[in-house]
Amino acid sequence: MSERKLRLGAFIPGAGQHLAAWRHPDAQADGALNFEHYRRMAGTAERGRFDAIFLADGLAANFGANMADGRSDKGAVFEPVTLFSALSVVTQNIGFIATASTTYEEPFQLARKFASLDYLSGGRAGWNVVTTTGDATARNFNRDKQPDHALRYERAAEFVATVKELWDSWEDDALVRDKTSGVFFDPAKVHTPNHKGKHFQVRGPLNVARPPQGYPVIVQAGQSEAGRDLAAGTAEVIFTAQQSLEDAQAFYQDVKGRLARYGRRPEDLKVMPGVFPVVAATEAEAEARRKYQELQDLIHPEAGLALLNGLSGNELDLSKYPLDGPLPELPVTEGMKSRQGMMVDIARKHNFSIRQLYQWVAGARGHWTLVGSVEQVADQLQLWFENGAADGFNVLPPYLPGSLDEIVDLLIPELQRRGLFRTEYEGRTLRENLGLARPANQFAAGRLRAA
Amino acid sequence: MSERKLRLGAFIPGAGQHLAAWRHPDAQADGALNFEHYRRMAGTAERGRFDAIFLADGLAANFGANMADGRSDKGAVFEPVTLFSALSVVTQNIGFIATASTTYEEPFQLARKFASLDYLSGGRAGWNVVTTTGDATARNFNRDKQPDHALRYERAAEFVATVKELWDSWEDDALVRDKTSGVFFDPAKVHTPNHKGKHFQVRGPLNVARPPQGYPVIVQAGQSEAGRDLAAGTAEVIFTAQQSLEDAQAFYQDVKGRLARYGRRPEDLKVMPGVFPVVAATEAEAEARRKYQELQDLIHPEAGLALLNGLSGNELDLSKYPLDGPLPELPVTEGMKSRQGMMVDIARKHNFSIRQLYQWVAGARGHWTLVGSVEQVADQLQLWFENGAADGFNVLPPYLPGSLDEIVDLLIPELQRRGLFRTEYEGRTLRENLGLARPANQFAAGRLRAA
Repeated sequence: MSERKLRLGAFIPGAGQHLAAWRHPDAQADGALNFEHYRRMAGTAERGRFDAIFLADGLAANFGANMADGRSDKGAVFEPVTLFSALSVVTQNIGFIATASTTYEEPFQLARKFASLDYLSGGRAGWNVVTTTGDATARNFNRDKQPDHALRYERAAEFVATVKELWDSWEDDALVRDKTSGVFFDPAKVHTPNHKGKHFQVRGPLNVARPPQGYPVIVQAGQSEAGRDLAAGTAEVIFTAQQSLEDAQAFYQDVKGRLARYGRRPEDLKVMPGVFPVVAATEAEAEARRKYQELQDLIHPEAGLALLNGLSGNELDLSKYPLDGPLPELPVTEGMKSRQGMMVDIARKHNFSIRQLYQWVAGARGHWTLVGSVEQVADQLQLWFENGAADGFNVLPPYLPGSLDEIVDLLIPELQRRGLFRTEYEGRTLRENLGLARPANQFAAGRLRAA
Repeated sequence: MSERKLRLGAFIPGAGQHLAAWRHPDAQADGALNFEHYRRMAGTAERGRFDAIFLADGLAANFGANMADGRSDKGAVFEPVTLFSALSVVTQNIGFIATASTTYEEPFQLARKFASLDYLSGGRAGWNVVTTTGDATARNFNRDKQPDHALRYERAAEFVATVKELWDSWEDDALVRDKTSGVFFDPAKVHTPNHKGKHFQVRGPLNVARPPQGYPVIVQAGQSEAGRDLAAGTAEVIFTAQQSLEDAQAFYQDVKGRLARYGRRPEDLKVMPGVFPVVAATEAEAEARRKYQELQDLIHPEAGLALLNGLSGNELDLSKYPLDGPLPELPVTEGMKSRQGMMVDIARKHNFSIRQLYQWVAGARGHWTLVGSVEQVADQLQLWFENGAADGFNVLPPYLPGSLDEIVDLLIPELQRRGLFRTEYEGRTLRENLGLARPANQFAAGRLRAA
């Protein structure tokens, strides 16, 4: 038994993580726009004592590479903050990590909606900061092409700083509400950030009071150099894709090592690699392998090729190459640099055919795949957790609701038996459960006064 | 008994509509950020068979004229769409009309969040289209000054058109979800609007399927010429401020008369003036007057002056004039033209002192004030409804929760007894309850194909 506990997030995208998840006989094919499905998922994750549920997000319909084949179930989905607002009032403890873009949103609006979610949930909101890749999104926002990688990250850093200023614009005890005197708030405790930077000019104050958590938990998922620096400067949870213990350790060391430069301590940032677990109800590894293969066999080749094309910046039509032949040379694209490079490395390393590569990608999408008995999977998670590779994991259930049920009914109890995971929630807020400090208000000390 | 029924919306801003509402002994002073308070309000409105609850909104902290006095309870509030998403899953029938700005939002994001709310609520979403007035908001969005009135309305018209194209980008039956063939959607039923206009370039399709209502109900509140034209072209409900039967009739005639130009029928637009009712539990008018005066006496002069200053474009400091003296000449400001002009007219017409003017404004904020017995108030509503002045009303309860309770317990039963208002909901969606047709999909006929 160790005092340090795993932190666990659960990805719950509609019918599940696997590309063909929705085709599974037991999957909720209409899950992506079905509130009752999400209510059930949130309840299951809460029963499993997960820290949070997590949704990726984009600002363009995600059809893989194109929409001509009609095979993607990710094109029509809930907007995460509205969905999580609804889920927050029918749950008690689970946190909500919603993805939102620094490239296509505005700091005032984003600060406000996450503050609102934090109030609705009683302090269970988290923001997964993404810069959003791809020209498809740019074309939905008055542009032809996306801003380049460096500019997106520069804007992201200023965006996060601006949002924090807005969250701090009301001190925690600014609202007095004294009916007798008629004073509703203390003007000395409401600050006007008057942010004027390269990308944003935002006067403030925000029109929501300071969120219950001070700031909703800041999550970041980039793996590039710019992404690691952004995470080291601003993130409290980093979601990362790692394939081996060695790589995960190197990444862990690297990002923890960057924190001091920003005046932060190693425990201020939780490193949570993604994991795609296929576990069996029995202890037989073969049963898990069979279940995994069942999903792999459901991938239509058109859907598999569209997936790879999407990951290659929508510029690579692999349909002209033999499915069971090798991957041709890929051009390097501007978007999603790190994920794409990893795909190519994987294909070369394993000598994958195109079909094998899309099957490999279709489940975990570049994350760590664990197929085995409950014991085998728990062993691997423990190994990473206890050897400087992870503070916890973001679990990507293969299909929903079935895989999350299995994870909660089988894997979580095993982790609890080993003393690796909580049996009851430690606190009321996401921040408390993750073991993260509540941030001080940067204006409370008087750096800025109300204008 | 007439077949035509009143449509009723309820404004539920925090502690209520009256400027001093939060100071009332029975008011929920922390209501603006208290979900349980809103849950109760939504339940009360639903028990009263209201069509919808309604929230105004701004994108700047609303301190009246300034924040130095600390007297405004409107500075820190929920973001309406997140709040309504949460309320939608704990209610069954009530509609949700959320205000959102065409000047400071982007069509893709707005289309998406309202579509998401429409799914969460099972077809009970409405969008109150506003152009947002005031430089304070501009300063939160990278500008020094707001765009001028005409430009805001021009952008608004294109914004609404773009949003409708996005809502139509998926046909109602586009989602096939055929597990056997692996076809999730029919590509021929997903359209790419590829909007290219003066203000917006938005390719689409939206990443949410077509909302249950086709479009969430479109509401508009402008009274200026440009506002009336926008409403005639796009709105299904118009929220208006009218003081007399004659003015209300003239407005009603005017906007209904504009519809034919846009190929629309009179019944396609419901005219719903605002009404601020103070009703008494007994039939005594005197009791209602006493209740009204109780609220008026709670207005702190600083708060009253700040209110008038805010309505004057934050450029008029009336504190140098005697409170009980006449209103000085006011400069005409760019923002909120029609509301401001009405204030001046009212002051001149009634020969109001500054104190009398702010007291008059502080309750209904330019809307129709009705103080009297239940019968008297019902008589007035019936008069307007049956004489071409209104299709229904947006009710502005003086303070919350108390005034809404009284309206539902006293006034609604009287309207029902008279056969003017429903006793059960007619339909499942807001559109059905309001008696509005579900819009056809403009792309389904083949005007645009998927790119």
